[in-house]
Amino acid sequence: MESKDVEPNLYDRKCGSRQVLDRIGDRWSVLVVLTLAVAPKRYSELAQRIDGVSQKMLTQTLRGLERDGLVTRTVHATVPPRVDYALTDLGRSLLTLVAGLEAWATDHLAEVESARARYDNTRSPN
Amino acid sequence: MESKDVEPNLYDRKCGSRQVLDRIGDRWSVLVVLTLAVAPKRYSELAQRIDGVSQKMLTQTLRGLERDGLVTRTVHATVPPRVDYALTDLGRSLLTLVAGLEAWATDHLAEVESARARYDNTRSPN
Repeated sequence: MESKDVEPNLYDRKCGSRQVLDRIGDRWSVLVVLTLAVAPKRYSELAQRIDGVSQKMLTQTLRGLERDGLVTRTVHATVPPRVDYALTDLGRSLLTLVAGLEAWATDHLAEVESARARYDNTRSPN
Repeated sequence: MESKDVEPNLYDRKCGSRQVLDRIGDRWSVLVVLTLAVAPKRYSELAQRIDGVSQKMLTQTLRGLERDGLVTRTVHATVPPRVDYALTDLGRSLLTLVAGLEAWATDHLAEVESARARYDNTRSPN
């Protein structure tokens, strides 16, 4: 469902901005965008840097980012062919935001873990 | 797995910051935090404002936000009892970030939709 005539509105269930939010808030998208911030990378370099990502998930994430215009995939005519992933200008416009997500998640991890421990203690039986 | 002795690192599969990122990048969490930005709200007010959220998903999202220390749930001793949800200081520290996500998703929706159409056209058979 496209929204040409009305302003995009995240509160509207039919607005495509919700799918955009899903993309940019996604764990693996954030990590790929951050990893590509400095320079283009090959698939194997991304897989190595992003500890624990499965091949299936990395492939799916890269395809989604490419489809949404955030990442380009370039095949170089070398032997063997080399495939590079790079941020587009649109992808680059996300950098401040995803760096902010990373910073918040790491800066506040201890607070969140304490809150969870308190919550779980309060609610556990006995 | 907690990480007390090392700096939190989003690239490490064992680091809890990944779960924190999942929370703060989640579509429904973003919408709840944004909706609570101005004032505390009742469950029914949240459900009404966030078009399309199921009862199950809203309940689960609020419980997750409460557990992570981002939202408080207060039961008022009225008849019938009134239950309010409000942001904590920690939740409030997310506001700039989630407003940034909302702004990016709505400001760039048209660009993302164009990119998708191009991608799908290039790849469709025939």
